[in-house]
Amino acid sequence: MHLNTKNVFTPPRNLARFVKKRKEHIGLAPDDISFKGEKKMDEVVLRLVDYNSENLEEKVIERVDTILSHQKKPTVTWFNIDGLHESEIIEQIGESFDFDKLVLAEVMDTNSRPKVHDFGDCILLSIKMLQQNEKNHLISVENLSLVLTESVLLSFQEKRGDVFEPVRERIRNNKKRIRTGGTDYLAFALLDIVVDNYIYIVGVLGGKIETLEETLLEEPRKSVIDEIYTYKREMNFLRKNIAPAKEMILALSKIESELIAESSRIHFKELLDNINQAVDSSETYREILSDQLNIYHTTISSKLNDVMKFLTIFSVIFIPLTFIAGIYGTNFDVVPELKYQYSYFIMWGVMIIVAIGMLLYFKKRKWL
Amino acid sequence: MHLNTKNVFTPPRNLARFVKKRKEHIGLAPDDISFKGEKKMDEVVLRLVDYNSENLEEKVIERVDTILSHQKKPTVTWFNIDGLHESEIIEQIGESFDFDKLVLAEVMDTNSRPKVHDFGDCILLSIKMLQQNEKNHLISVENLSLVLTESVLLSFQEKRGDVFEPVRERIRNNKKRIRTGGTDYLAFALLDIVVDNYIYIVGVLGGKIETLEETLLEEPRKSVIDEIYTYKREMNFLRKNIAPAKEMILALSKIESELIAESSRIHFKELLDNINQAVDSSETYREILSDQLNIYHTTISSKLNDVMKFLTIFSVIFIPLTFIAGIYGTNFDVVPELKYQYSYFIMWGVMIIVAIGMLLYFKKRKWL
Amino acid sequence: MHLNTKNVFTPPRNLARFVKKRKEHIGLAPDDISFKGEKKMDEVVLRLVDYNSENLEEKVIERVDTILSHQKKPTVTWFNIDGLHESEIIEQIGESFDFDKLVLAEVMDTNSRPKVHDFGDCILLSIKMLQQNEKNHLISVENLSLVLTESVLLSFQEKRGDVFEPVRERIRNNKKRIRTGGTDYLAFALLDIVVDNYIYIVGVLGGKIETLEETLLEEPRKSVIDEIYTYKREMNFLRKNIAPAKEMILALSKIESELIAESSRIHFKELLDNINQAVDSSETYREILSDQLNIYHTTISSKLNDVMKFLTIFSVIFIPLTFIAGIYGTNFDVVPELKYQYSYFIMWGVMIIVAIGMLLYFKKRKWL
Amino acid sequence: MHLNTKNVFTPPRNLARFVKKRKEHIGLAPDDISFKGEKKMDEVVLRLVDYNSENLEEKVIERVDTILSHQKKPTVTWFNIDGLHESEIIEQIGESFDFDKLVLAEVMDTNSRPKVHDFGDCILLSIKMLQQNEKNHLISVENLSLVLTESVLLSFQEKRGDVFEPVRERIRNNKKRIRTGGTDYLAFALLDIVVDNYIYIVGVLGGKIETLEETLLEEPRKSVIDEIYTYKREMNFLRKNIAPAKEMILALSKIESELIAESSRIHFKELLDNINQAVDSSETYREILSDQLNIYHTTISSKLNDVMKFLTIFSVIFIPLTFIAGIYGTNFDVVPELKYQYSYFIMWGVMIIVAIGMLLYFKKRKWL
Amino acid sequence: MHLNTKNVFTPPRNLARFVKKRKEHIGLAPDDISFKGEKKMDEVVLRLVDYNSENLEEKVIERVDTILSHQKKPTVTWFNIDGLHESEIIEQIGESFDFDKLVLAEVMDTNSRPKVHDFGDCILLSIKMLQQNEKNHLISVENLSLVLTESVLLSFQEKRGDVFEPVRERIRNNKKRIRTGGTDYLAFALLDIVVDNYIYIVGVLGGKIETLEETLLEEPRKSVIDEIYTYKREMNFLRKNIAPAKEMILALSKIESELIAESSRIHFKELLDNINQAVDSSETYREILSDQLNIYHTTISSKLNDVMKFLTIFSVIFIPLTFIAGIYGTNFDVVPELKYQYSYFIMWGVMIIVAIGMLLYFKKRKWL
Repeated sequence: MHLNTKNVFTPPRNLARFVKKRKEHIGLAPDDISFKGEKKMDEVVLRLVDYNSENLEEKVIERVDTILSHQKKPTVTWFNIDGLHESEIIEQIGESFDFDKLVLAEVMDTNSRPKVHDFGDCILLSIKMLQQNEKNHLISVENLSLVLTESVLLSFQEKRGDVFEPVRERIRNNKKRIRTGGTDYLAFALLDIVVDNYIYIVGVLGGKIETLEETLLEEPRKSVIDEIYTYKREMNFLRKNIAPAKEMILALSKIESELIAESSRIHFKELLDNINQAVDSSETYREILSDQLNIYHTTISSKLNDVMKFLTIFSVIFIPLTFIAGIYGTNFDVVPELKYQYSYFIMWGVMIIVAIGMLLYFKKRKWL
Repeated sequence: MHLNTKNVFTPPRNLARFVKKRKEHIGLAPDDISFKGEKKMDEVVLRLVDYNSENLEEKVIERVDTILSHQKKPTVTWFNIDGLHESEIIEQIGESFDFDKLVLAEVMDTNSRPKVHDFGDCILLSIKMLQQNEKNHLISVENLSLVLTESVLLSFQEKRGDVFEPVRERIRNNKKRIRTGGTDYLAFALLDIVVDNYIYIVGVLGGKIETLEETLLEEPRKSVIDEIYTYKREMNFLRKNIAPAKEMILALSKIESELIAESSRIHFKELLDNINQAVDSSETYREILSDQLNIYHTTISSKLNDVMKFLTIFSVIFIPLTFIAGIYGTNFDVVPELKYQYSYFIMWGVMIIVAIGMLLYFKKRKWL
Repeated sequence: MHLNTKNVFTPPRNLARFVKKRKEHIGLAPDDISFKGEKKMDEVVLRLVDYNSENLEEKVIERVDTILSHQKKPTVTWFNIDGLHESEIIEQIGESFDFDKLVLAEVMDTNSRPKVHDFGDCILLSIKMLQQNEKNHLISVENLSLVLTESVLLSFQEKRGDVFEPVRERIRNNKKRIRTGGTDYLAFALLDIVVDNYIYIVGVLGGKIETLEETLLEEPRKSVIDEIYTYKREMNFLRKNIAPAKEMILALSKIESELIAESSRIHFKELLDNINQAVDSSETYREILSDQLNIYHTTISSKLNDVMKFLTIFSVIFIPLTFIAGIYGTNFDVVPELKYQYSYFIMWGVMIIVAIGMLLYFKKRKWL
Repeated sequence: MHLNTKNVFTPPRNLARFVKKRKEHIGLAPDDISFKGEKKMDEVVLRLVDYNSENLEEKVIERVDTILSHQKKPTVTWFNIDGLHESEIIEQIGESFDFDKLVLAEVMDTNSRPKVHDFGDCILLSIKMLQQNEKNHLISVENLSLVLTESVLLSFQEKRGDVFEPVRERIRNNKKRIRTGGTDYLAFALLDIVVDNYIYIVGVLGGKIETLEETLLEEPRKSVIDEIYTYKREMNFLRKNIAPAKEMILALSKIESELIAESSRIHFKELLDNINQAVDSSETYREILSDQLNIYHTTISSKLNDVMKFLTIFSVIFIPLTFIAGIYGTNFDVVPELKYQYSYFIMWGVMIIVAIGMLLYFKKRKWL
Repeated sequence: MHLNTKNVFTPPRNLARFVKKRKEHIGLAPDDISFKGEKKMDEVVLRLVDYNSENLEEKVIERVDTILSHQKKPTVTWFNIDGLHESEIIEQIGESFDFDKLVLAEVMDTNSRPKVHDFGDCILLSIKMLQQNEKNHLISVENLSLVLTESVLLSFQEKRGDVFEPVRERIRNNKKRIRTGGTDYLAFALLDIVVDNYIYIVGVLGGKIETLEETLLEEPRKSVIDEIYTYKREMNFLRKNIAPAKEMILALSKIESELIAESSRIHFKELLDNINQAVDSSETYREILSDQLNIYHTTISSKLNDVMKFLTIFSVIFIPLTFIAGIYGTNFDVVPELKYQYSYFIMWGVMIIVAIGMLLYFKKRKWL
């Protein structure tokens, strides 16, 4: 359970994990679509799922313009772009769809805050996807942007991942709801997975935190405190990413747009309930962590105090004994006691009585 | 009063108590009605109470379709389902009532947040029922879902319990109000019991907490701190469950639906007052607990300091005495005092004077 | 100024002071009018004041139906009921006035939260009256309910008290405003006294708290900390009761009802200002108390540290001296210094020099 | 820079500085105009400034009715009353202007909260004026009430002061704006000075607080902590008075009244910005003070720890040496080493080696 | 990485860094345009950029009236004034543009709070520009005022800087958007740089703070704590300036004015998202700093405790040994053990056994 704290702290040097702004990106035009994040994969992968209640087509495509034929079809087309570092591809997409330049500029700014922007003919959603390293519990973040048009949903991820596989499964299995829904329902399904992941991660961290409690009360090792601070930092990181997502989903549930069917609203409300649950729980765990820190300090310091008290009492008992021995180590010519033949044994007796008396006194005052 | 802390911490391993999400439930369709909680009882029990101001019928039924005949009657039918783990039964209910699939999916998701969802022909309410283990004060939680239609109220509990017995009693005793009210009044009566239970549990914990204070000031045993942290955690747990219920009841008191009579609104407002009282009190107790923690630490550390000061002063008094004895233990050829026959007694006198002088000095400076 | 903490803590065992709910009251019908508080006096006293700008009638009545004749008169009738434990009387009142059953049920639930409920033909107000024990500063709480109808104001108190005497005086003295006002103005006059009392109690506690500061800096006795925690708890108790009263008065100042004249609104606003002042001040005193706690701990620990440093330095000075004496207490055959006749005196000289040197060194480093 | 804390704490005994309510004022009618504050000056001074864009008249008047002639003139009349303890004068004013009785009752209640009350034909404003004692930084408070009518502005101060001199100067110098503005602009000019004073006082305290930081890190004397707590208390006092003023100015900026010209609204908004700045800064300084307290404690305790570590290490080094000397002070018949003639010198050597070895060990472990 | 704390604290003596108000500025008329800040540069520099989608003119001008010719042209004119201390120039500007006197008075009050004021024919925006000293991380602040009219944007800075160079670059490069936008778009472009700078500075500080964590756990030097408090103070300073800017941008995004095109609103919303990100992150870092302080104290105190425990145990082991030696240093006539020839060696043996026994005991109890 002990964390390898060496490995835990590996944010890129001189670049904050909680907020990122490179000097060279200051003052760029708001419609600049150069990629502003970190490159996280080699090749851009374009995947396409096209379906309605009867048909389903799924393929990896090479060129952006393949999408054009799907654009006019009444089917729902889900166009997934993994990897944002090739701005040509992004530009081609922009041209194919005739988006406002701002749309793709915001997609490329992966360090921005979760948001909803309604551009009339399309809605841009962006949210943070969180992933937890199983070993060191370090949470990593990836930006997900969705662009919702009438018949196409574009999803932009920074790197390839299989997190949306369950949605693909549901589409393949022809579970009625998703195959009859529009792009808004598909967007909901994707966001739902993102939010469920928030709850899952809070729950996993939470489980770890609750287990800590026992360790804390039984044997508070130094490593426990490292764990507590690690969890605290990760909870902070989580909250920093979840809280604005909550605002975004709230805005989404209130947006008035033809692109979002009235019947989808209940799903977005459900989403809001779920994200509230994640936020509430993370708050609760933050308080529990604070309590645990206090328990740790109390336990440690009470243990130390017991040790110190024991040692001090031990010393104190010997002090008068050593003093008595010192008295009879003096070389005065006349020390009457020295002459008496049982003096030595009497001294021992006195010493034992003094020691026992002190012990009893300390016991009576409950110091032992 | 000391808690058996061993027994207190028994959340299932690796599953957080404050938030729960299994990995396999991520990405399920929102209308999936498989049971997502923990099975808490063996058999599903279906109970039915059917009444109007004149007649009353109460029975345990075996098959869901028995309900069908009641559905069309103008009487109020309360259909109580204890146990959610048999999805067939739930499905049958769904079919019988022709509910939106989401309704029952939300009933089955027992880990979700308290909420009100208005589906037009029915209203779904969900809230957490709390129960307190008398011995270890551990609070356990159970999800209660109510589905309110015009003439039928369905209540779904995770396990059988007799918490709603007072309502059944009132129905049997033909107390006028409840027998003339509709399903909305019945729903209020059930929620009222849930909320009263919140206040009761806060009060019980609160009583324990207030009693702690005395113990704290008189003899702060180590066990007290375990109790404080136990109460703190339970207060956290409570608040985590009550606070969203407050939002839910607020939403309920504002809902505009034909299913809720205008005359019921005042009851929902009363409910809101009550839940506010529970939330306020739990806040107050949280602060009292924090104060108690501080009192504990202060008392403990002031006791330790007294001990340490006493021991230190005790040692310090012997130090110059031992030094004097050491002086006359030296073997110099010429130490004039050694020759004088009363030297030994003078040494004793000097020692006593030094010791008393130091004691007086310490007393004067109020160190003793 | 030291509190007798033994007497301070006397809440009834196992019943919380901050929130109260008996198990047997859970699940009662909302219109149940059995008394749910604690009986605080022996006999119910019914007092009646009937006035308009010209006439005044004041009497203690025996039977509820006496009120009936006053009910239809255009005069303002103030009907004060001290003691709620005889439900027959309450029932008679309900019948005489033909109130909704909820009205009196809420009057009887003395542990409920301050609130305003508009029943159309009457308005129910409930608020907590606070009283402070002069000796131990323990604040006790009593529920006051007002039922405001067009020509009658009913006031229900749990026990007899003379807190409203100034209002009676004003009525008797025919101060114009109150004799020409309606029941709403009378209700304001009563609430005004309740709120002024809040400010007064906060001020009395506040005065005590501010005086503490001096004691704290001059001689921080242990009793001070008990006082601080007592004030803290009472401030908590106060705030717990005042804060919801603020909400209640805010609601009252916004209520739209024929029973409340437009000209009374400014008084309710004034009331709101006053209660805000009480809440603000109690917040400020809470912070001052926190600071005082910190001052106490700092002062205490800095005193202890001074003692410990002094004692440690004292010991440390003797350590090398005792060591030197030990050296010349050894029994080696050849220890050249022992032979020299001034050795003993030289040893003394060396010891004195070492001791002075150490003292100077400690002084230079500002440890003394 | 050290404060004479003796002088700092001089609130009148048993009367809180943060909230004041005398028992005898409870239950007074709301239109009672007896003076409820403390008498702060001997004689009431009535000053009058009457101006329009062309003419200016400035005089101290003896009798209230002098004002009557000015009342009907289209000029702006500023009528300043210093001293509120003579209720006759106040009554005369009330009669002359035919105010609602509440207006002057609120003026006389100098302990009330800052507020705006619109009485139709006049607006009552009340706000706290703060003044800082240059020597002990103690902030004193005085209530300022403004009554704004169409052509007269009445200002009531508890004692004479020259704080509004700059406004008189501006009127005298015929700076166009103020001479062409109405009573609302004049009221703004007075409030502006009050609020600027808030900012100034926060700034002065703030400057002191920022200078403390250096002292803290270099040589943390005990007096520093007294200063910190003094500033903390004054910041609390300030905030307690400024925060409600903010509400009052917000209400003022939104008031809809013929007495306030549309063109004055921008000035009230500016006022709101200014008071926000004062509130924000006081918050920031409160946090800085908390940090400083922590810095103080850390520095002090780290110094103490260094001393204690040094002393402990010093003692520990002598312990084995004294033990060795003790060994050779034993009187056994056979102790071979005692016979050897270089033993004594070897003992010294061993002792020196042991001492140096321990020093090196401690150095290596970075304890020295 | 260690900060030279001597240099860090250089706020001008007796003038607070967080809030500034000179006594002589109290009571000035609100339209007073004397300069109220600190002079930060020698000469006022007037720069002018005039452009539309086809043409671009850029020059430094000497006299204010040069601007007049540009005023009527349909092109966008950006008029940048660096340095505010020459009030003549400001007055000339006021006359040329015929602004309300308040506009320039507010420009000159560089210590005021960020704000938006709509004067009908122009909008005044003011915001704080932050700059971070690379060496000591001290953040300095400068006020930026923008006055937005239909065809001219005036920007007022306190001192010359090249922070807006990227905007000039974009204008020069004829990036379409900015050259076709109006003055509102230009204002957005400038504010965007200011806000991006906030994020950048938070990020730089954040990076430093995150790097601290490692140092903290490995070797907590005293200098670390100075760094933590420095970052804390700078974070406070930052937040103090950013938080009101957030309000200002929120107000800006909601303003209804002909001067702001509907199409610019999305940019202001983006700005709001960005500033929220800055505020959120600064909050997160404040919490991280608090945690780091706690980690520091824990680490330090646990190290000290280890040292003290080691030293105490070391002493305690010698205490009984020295006692034994003391026993046999007594000069009683009869001490049987002294006669036995192996006694001395036995004593050594006993001592070694005692010492080892104690070590084992301490080890067993995990004190070593």
